[in-house]
Amino acid sequence: MQGPPFLWGQTKNNPEKVHEWIRPLQGGQGAPGDADAVIYGLPLSSSSISPSAASAFPEACRRAWKGFSTYNIDEDVDLSSLSVYDLGDTIQHVTDIGQCHSHIATACSDIRKQHPQSVMMGIGGDHSVTAKTILGLKEADPNVKIGLLQLDTHFDLRNPAELGPANGTPVRQLIEQELVEGKHVYNIGLHGFFNSRALKEFADAHQVKYITLNKARKMGVGKMVEHALWELAQEVDHIYFTCDMDVLDMAYAPGVPATTPGGMRTDELFEAALVCGQHEKVKAMDIVCLDPEKDVAGMTVKAGTHVMLSFLTGVAMRK
Amino acid sequence: MQGPPFLWGQTKNNPEKVHEWIRPLQGGQGAPGDADAVIYGLPLSSSSISPSAASAFPEACRRAWKGFSTYNIDEDVDLSSLSVYDLGDTIQHVTDIGQCHSHIATACSDIRKQHPQSVMMGIGGDHSVTAKTILGLKEADPNVKIGLLQLDTHFDLRNPAELGPANGTPVRQLIEQELVEGKHVYNIGLHGFFNSRALKEFADAHQVKYITLNKARKMGVGKMVEHALWELAQEVDHIYFTCDMDVLDMAYAPGVPATTPGGMRTDELFEAALVCGQHEKVKAMDIVCLDPEKDVAGMTVKAGTHVMLSFLTGVAMRK
Amino acid sequence: MQGPPFLWGQTKNNPEKVHEWIRPLQGGQGAPGDADAVIYGLPLSSSSISPSAASAFPEACRRAWKGFSTYNIDEDVDLSSLSVYDLGDTIQHVTDIGQCHSHIATACSDIRKQHPQSVMMGIGGDHSVTAKTILGLKEADPNVKIGLLQLDTHFDLRNPAELGPANGTPVRQLIEQELVEGKHVYNIGLHGFFNSRALKEFADAHQVKYITLNKARKMGVGKMVEHALWELAQEVDHIYFTCDMDVLDMAYAPGVPATTPGGMRTDELFEAALVCGQHEKVKAMDIVCLDPEKDVAGMTVKAGTHVMLSFLTGVAMRK
Amino acid sequence: MQGPPFLWGQTKNNPEKVHEWIRPLQGGQGAPGDADAVIYGLPLSSSSISPSAASAFPEACRRAWKGFSTYNIDEDVDLSSLSVYDLGDTIQHVTDIGQCHSHIATACSDIRKQHPQSVMMGIGGDHSVTAKTILGLKEADPNVKIGLLQLDTHFDLRNPAELGPANGTPVRQLIEQELVEGKHVYNIGLHGFFNSRALKEFADAHQVKYITLNKARKMGVGKMVEHALWELAQEVDHIYFTCDMDVLDMAYAPGVPATTPGGMRTDELFEAALVCGQHEKVKAMDIVCLDPEKDVAGMTVKAGTHVMLSFLTGVAMRK
Amino acid sequence: MQGPPFLWGQTKNNPEKVHEWIRPLQGGQGAPGDADAVIYGLPLSSSSISPSAASAFPEACRRAWKGFSTYNIDEDVDLSSLSVYDLGDTIQHVTDIGQCHSHIATACSDIRKQHPQSVMMGIGGDHSVTAKTILGLKEADPNVKIGLLQLDTHFDLRNPAELGPANGTPVRQLIEQELVEGKHVYNIGLHGFFNSRALKEFADAHQVKYITLNKARKMGVGKMVEHALWELAQEVDHIYFTCDMDVLDMAYAPGVPATTPGGMRTDELFEAALVCGQHEKVKAMDIVCLDPEKDVAGMTVKAGTHVMLSFLTGVAMRK
Amino acid sequence: MQGPPFLWGQTKNNPEKVHEWIRPLQGGQGAPGDADAVIYGLPLSSSSISPSAASAFPEACRRAWKGFSTYNIDEDVDLSSLSVYDLGDTIQHVTDIGQCHSHIATACSDIRKQHPQSVMMGIGGDHSVTAKTILGLKEADPNVKIGLLQLDTHFDLRNPAELGPANGTPVRQLIEQELVEGKHVYNIGLHGFFNSRALKEFADAHQVKYITLNKARKMGVGKMVEHALWELAQEVDHIYFTCDMDVLDMAYAPGVPATTPGGMRTDELFEAALVCGQHEKVKAMDIVCLDPEKDVAGMTVKAGTHVMLSFLTGVAMRK
Repeated sequence: MQGPPFLWGQTKNNPEKVHEWIRPLQGGQGAPGDADAVIYGLPLSSSSISPSAASAFPEACRRAWKGFSTYNIDEDVDLSSLSVYDLGDTIQHVTDIGQCHSHIATACSDIRKQHPQSVMMGIGGDHSVTAKTILGLKEADPNVKIGLLQLDTHFDLRNPAELGPANGTPVRQLIEQELVEGKHVYNIGLHGFFNSRALKEFADAHQVKYITLNKARKMGVGKMVEHALWELAQEVDHIYFTCDMDVLDMAYAPGVPATTPGGMRTDELFEAALVCGQHEKVKAMDIVCLDPEKDVAGMTVKAGTHVMLSFLTGVAMRK
Repeated sequence: MQGPPFLWGQTKNNPEKVHEWIRPLQGGQGAPGDADAVIYGLPLSSSSISPSAASAFPEACRRAWKGFSTYNIDEDVDLSSLSVYDLGDTIQHVTDIGQCHSHIATACSDIRKQHPQSVMMGIGGDHSVTAKTILGLKEADPNVKIGLLQLDTHFDLRNPAELGPANGTPVRQLIEQELVEGKHVYNIGLHGFFNSRALKEFADAHQVKYITLNKARKMGVGKMVEHALWELAQEVDHIYFTCDMDVLDMAYAPGVPATTPGGMRTDELFEAALVCGQHEKVKAMDIVCLDPEKDVAGMTVKAGTHVMLSFLTGVAMRK
Repeated sequence: MQGPPFLWGQTKNNPEKVHEWIRPLQGGQGAPGDADAVIYGLPLSSSSISPSAASAFPEACRRAWKGFSTYNIDEDVDLSSLSVYDLGDTIQHVTDIGQCHSHIATACSDIRKQHPQSVMMGIGGDHSVTAKTILGLKEADPNVKIGLLQLDTHFDLRNPAELGPANGTPVRQLIEQELVEGKHVYNIGLHGFFNSRALKEFADAHQVKYITLNKARKMGVGKMVEHALWELAQEVDHIYFTCDMDVLDMAYAPGVPATTPGGMRTDELFEAALVCGQHEKVKAMDIVCLDPEKDVAGMTVKAGTHVMLSFLTGVAMRK
Repeated sequence: MQGPPFLWGQTKNNPEKVHEWIRPLQGGQGAPGDADAVIYGLPLSSSSISPSAASAFPEACRRAWKGFSTYNIDEDVDLSSLSVYDLGDTIQHVTDIGQCHSHIATACSDIRKQHPQSVMMGIGGDHSVTAKTILGLKEADPNVKIGLLQLDTHFDLRNPAELGPANGTPVRQLIEQELVEGKHVYNIGLHGFFNSRALKEFADAHQVKYITLNKARKMGVGKMVEHALWELAQEVDHIYFTCDMDVLDMAYAPGVPATTPGGMRTDELFEAALVCGQHEKVKAMDIVCLDPEKDVAGMTVKAGTHVMLSFLTGVAMRK
Repeated sequence: MQGPPFLWGQTKNNPEKVHEWIRPLQGGQGAPGDADAVIYGLPLSSSSISPSAASAFPEACRRAWKGFSTYNIDEDVDLSSLSVYDLGDTIQHVTDIGQCHSHIATACSDIRKQHPQSVMMGIGGDHSVTAKTILGLKEADPNVKIGLLQLDTHFDLRNPAELGPANGTPVRQLIEQELVEGKHVYNIGLHGFFNSRALKEFADAHQVKYITLNKARKMGVGKMVEHALWELAQEVDHIYFTCDMDVLDMAYAPGVPATTPGGMRTDELFEAALVCGQHEKVKAMDIVCLDPEKDVAGMTVKAGTHVMLSFLTGVAMRK
Repeated sequence: MQGPPFLWGQTKNNPEKVHEWIRPLQGGQGAPGDADAVIYGLPLSSSSISPSAASAFPEACRRAWKGFSTYNIDEDVDLSSLSVYDLGDTIQHVTDIGQCHSHIATACSDIRKQHPQSVMMGIGGDHSVTAKTILGLKEADPNVKIGLLQLDTHFDLRNPAELGPANGTPVRQLIEQELVEGKHVYNIGLHGFFNSRALKEFADAHQVKYITLNKARKMGVGKMVEHALWELAQEVDHIYFTCDMDVLDMAYAPGVPATTPGGMRTDELFEAALVCGQHEKVKAMDIVCLDPEKDVAGMTVKAGTHVMLSFLTGVAMRK
């Protein structure tokens, strides 16, 4: 006797939707070392300066990707040619932020060791996770020189001595801990009244490269990212792409704790992510500071998920 | 080498949360015939008179129950003593409502045959599913006499000859198809200006039992349900409990397509569901017409999930 | 050749829905003098202390009543036995509040003259309209002694010398203009921290009758209204029932500019409106301070519309 | 005696607002055969793949147009020079989607016969209505060769054999039923991850013309539409313009069931609609998949209404 | 020359509104030692298990109280007879939760020393602040025996060894640190499926007193609180009243991170707060876990502010 | 003994945030005559044609600016080099709109006299305030010839004889009262169907200069503003910049009573405000018609605040 007509989600051999393609793994174990990309959630947001439920984005992203096809019509690329695994979420402590950060670093170090060739994709969480992810990458391979391509409304150069390892500080942590040199940080997307002059002076003193959104638009955001990657690639072994969703204009991204007017449009951001995905030296990336509980009409969650897929489109185009 | 510290949801031997306890099954197969209860989603709402995304409630309910403990402190009952399985969702067609209904009837017939002792719990979907669920129950066991305990703001006695098998018609379908006798329908919760006089006259002509919310409150909603179950039990073999979430006042249930003021409070509804769960003859139930996309602050989804768990608390108290 | 299958709303001889029953009139003209009730919109809210779009309620109410049946199952009454006309909205000026108020008084005076037997039902607008409606009634019939049954969280006794004819002042206007005596004002529903002590002292000085919600609940709100009407009826010729929607608890009525916690439930308010409708001396009423733009899930608009229909149910029960 | 000062909406000889100009007709009857344009509502959305209240857009559009002037300052055109009639809504069945579609085809056939020169404007409803509208047009005039100018994020080429006549299938229905040739379909606006590769291959196999939004933007969306209309006009007798509101970016159109990031801006869409309105061969159009219940701040409803008026501006410029 | 007609908020000698009465102090300094009550904000919520912006409630409460009169009409009490000072917010660290908690303890100890007779009122913040406030009280006066009157949906007895000093643990911290004895904890308001059985067993093992909401309602919530205070007063020197806003039903309090159906009504809570305010031994209180960013129509913020004022009404009635 | 660790907002000598820099003054008194700029709130919106809570924007703006830095990274300008004072809000009457307007004129006249060199910045309020602000400026200095640079979706030339001094009429008031000549009004931003043809004809008859948004975009909005200012500067002594927030597209500004699709983007508006700020002859400005109660995700309030700061950046660049 055949059972009743029930429907269950599953990955398929001939996938059309993202959830039929990306393979979830129990306990983060078992992905082949040569996977094209591995995805992991970093559900931490108690380190955020503004109250944030960015910790809910990994789950929200997984739900949202059910609404996306694997086929990108803009580039005529089908992502299903890539092998991509979802390792699940790193374990977080409720109140011990130090332990959370330590878990992230350990997990990212382990992932790098187990998947030396895979592109690593962290789904945040707030921006504090970037400092710890790169710490993990350096633990896995202390000799690799890493540069940072940052899309952000902010420098994230605030002082950890004052704020602790909060989401306003990761780039400064990386520079002060000598994990990334200031001159290997490229920030595109700054605008308006959202950074103090002191931070700009810190950036200058450490030779951080940055360009405001208005200026980047003169060349085109995508072109500017391409140029920045090209410059970085002359200097470093690996490039880490960090996408703070607050780089977007709040009309496109209300679901961000410190969302601002005057920011990037989603079409610009998707192109930037595509360009990053295409570059051979981009070995890891993250998407941070997206708070699904603040979202309106699901638009920020869809935009964040699209960034991930635009980046993967680029990865597929490397081949 | 131990893997990185990842976290994955799973059912546990010593569960504290509902999702650690209710066991999901692939393809609706494999639950033991003697499970205490089986849950199945009925994600159909294109048969709704008002536009409705009630089809999204089964998934919303599964997400919501992660926020509920298995332990009911009001009754000092731990649901984890029950064996409960989640069979998944019945397959629905996008535009062929007849096929959808046919699937529901087949699925429910099969479930009844495979789980003759289990309490069957359908998570709707709109109220049209009730007519088809009971059709399935009758197919599985044509000789069983079924009575209906209905909590509803409406009679649901509108004319299928006019509307087709829409969510305003299930009780009339059941009566006209002689699956349930009019006198074995007990409706508690009618109020206000939400039924035409013609429907009331139809109810009278078919000896449908009904009592308005205001009158039920004089005895207490729970007591009134208890009394109705007692009367029904004299007459029928099995009682089907159907909970239309529109019975609730809209202050408690904004996420209902035809939500109204002047309805039931959640504490009254939860007590009613508990009482139904306790009665030995209640062998099946459903929760319908909850549209998560209309919800405010998640309150209706939480209320609907609570109804399911209050009912199961009653089932646990049968033992 | 028959035309294409188009659908148009219209009043019907055998109505089931409210909009098939209430007859709209162009220009407020032509209702028979002996109509049971006449309805008119008073779309003024620039006189509100808090910014308010209560001026949008008349239209919102007309749209909402399409979702209501003419049949009240609680009382087994069909409203279609009543002849009720919708006269449309009184004309308002954008910035000349004095002219607005003058129009309201003139319109209400004219309506009273043309429909001396009809129950007059004003759909506000903010509470300032009550002072002008009653002014109109007195112009039409200077000798009638009018009492006020007020359901309100506030006294509405603030000083027009200070605020002008704002929505916090109508009852004081009526007393000071000797249109209604202080002792013929009965206010039920006061609660919490929403009136200054000075207003309470003014009420006492003018023998305004009032009872807090908590105290009214000890007898039952409906019973208390019944009692107040009985007392008023000993003293006055006509009773005017004014329902300020801010009397409701904000869980039931978020769509009110000065909505508060600790207020009335809708079931209590509907019963109160029914009781007012039943009383022979209640010749006019209004529903005020409902701002549809602030509403959540349409619940306040539905509640306000229900008040109107509950009241009319009472009117139907007079016969 | 003059009546009280009441205000009632009506069409005016010297209109300034859209509702003072467009003339509503009872029962869809009586518009002169030579009206410049006729508008009709197609309130069907149970055929939508995602739950949708697009059936509520016709009424929402009529309410929204009260906020629009007849004068377009961009083109210095006053729409009141056109004679435009509102025929009302076609009758829909609650659950019999086949009957709904059949009504739409009959109504559109009748309208075309009664108004052979008028531009026909259908206010949806979901996108399934397009297949039936064109079916009606072909019934009225079997020899007319019709081409399709489609603004859409999707191909709408999904398989009706699988989904029935759902809103993902209308273009495929038209091709398979040989009502429109594949090569006479021009789709502008595709982007991102919202079509499977299989659909793209179907499009290619049937010579459907399409261009992604990113590519269209290089020429300018308006220019690209102009070009597509020019090409189509070489091949067909009449052009049908179908505007799926999901072509818009979700920042501009949250009130769309399958709204996506990376879509068109409203200024681009309004220009496209204007260009379509200007073209002599565009004899019919529709606006579909706008769900007012999902809207935020009324912006999608206003955008949809603006599309209708931008199109009519083009029609006025034909003269 | 007199200046232009500008308006500025200030406290008044003859206040009518709360903000004209409560006196804000710079730096928490300068309130007389014999103030009737002192208010202080505890803007910490990174210790919350669910993401929370409860840290924003102190400011939201101060804004909300501008909408409240000093006069309570239910009790005929004018709060302006009390001297109440607002000390401002305690300083919090962005990521160092330990330092935040230490600041709270220090601040509360200092406040108790400076205002030995004043009722202390802490505006949270999440529930973790209660453990630290009482720690501060004990530091200020180690010999005082403190009992806890807790209104809460949860026991808050989760294990700090597992969660750290999170908002699910404060009562267990107090018991384990021997600051309050288990038998001196009275919890009123538990209901539903929101506590694990293990927590209930811990409560029993430590003789925590608790009663579910359903049972408390049989006596009346206010009466039950009165009874609990009476019992506590036999055993302890001071009673600390902690009001977790999640005790409310979510229809009344959507702005709470873990809001649930089946909870308390605001009228019950306000009465409970009044009763607590009246009791001489209640020397401190707090209001916690109210997240203004999740609020709907401002209702939870108004409810939380009302709790504060209902409590103060009780304090005024002590005299 | 040092007090407890409390935090209080205050202006700082070395400010990083806007609220640490702008100095609030009690009663509008005491700002030095040579302040670079003075800010004052104009909390009036009962003169709005559509119901509006624009009166709440001054307070909302002050709260919002706490989230802005004083440093503008786009221009590398730190606003803290400017001396700016907040004079508070002008007093408004609840119902006497004439008195409100008179207060505004008096206040603005006084401010101009006391601060002859300061840039005056009015935070509305609805657009009716502009007519009265300029009336005040002319009272202070009758000989100054003032031109108007208006960013607006509307002409605001409606007839005060019909509407009174409503927010659709200020420019016409100015022209008819001969405070500003028609030819000295430059309106940039008109678009779509939001002005009647009659208003356009009035504009033409009075030589009002205007350009639609679409046409302005061809040169660039900023460039067009620059050009308009240059032309105006040839003709007038002082330029008044009035920014009606309804000039923005509703995707960027849902919190505007008459918000429309097809409007300006925020990046265009911020550039326009910067350009105005830079021009020596711009001596006063206002920001109007922003209703915080209608806002979504706080985006319109942030945009309005950004306009103020972009303008001040321009002022700082004058030096």
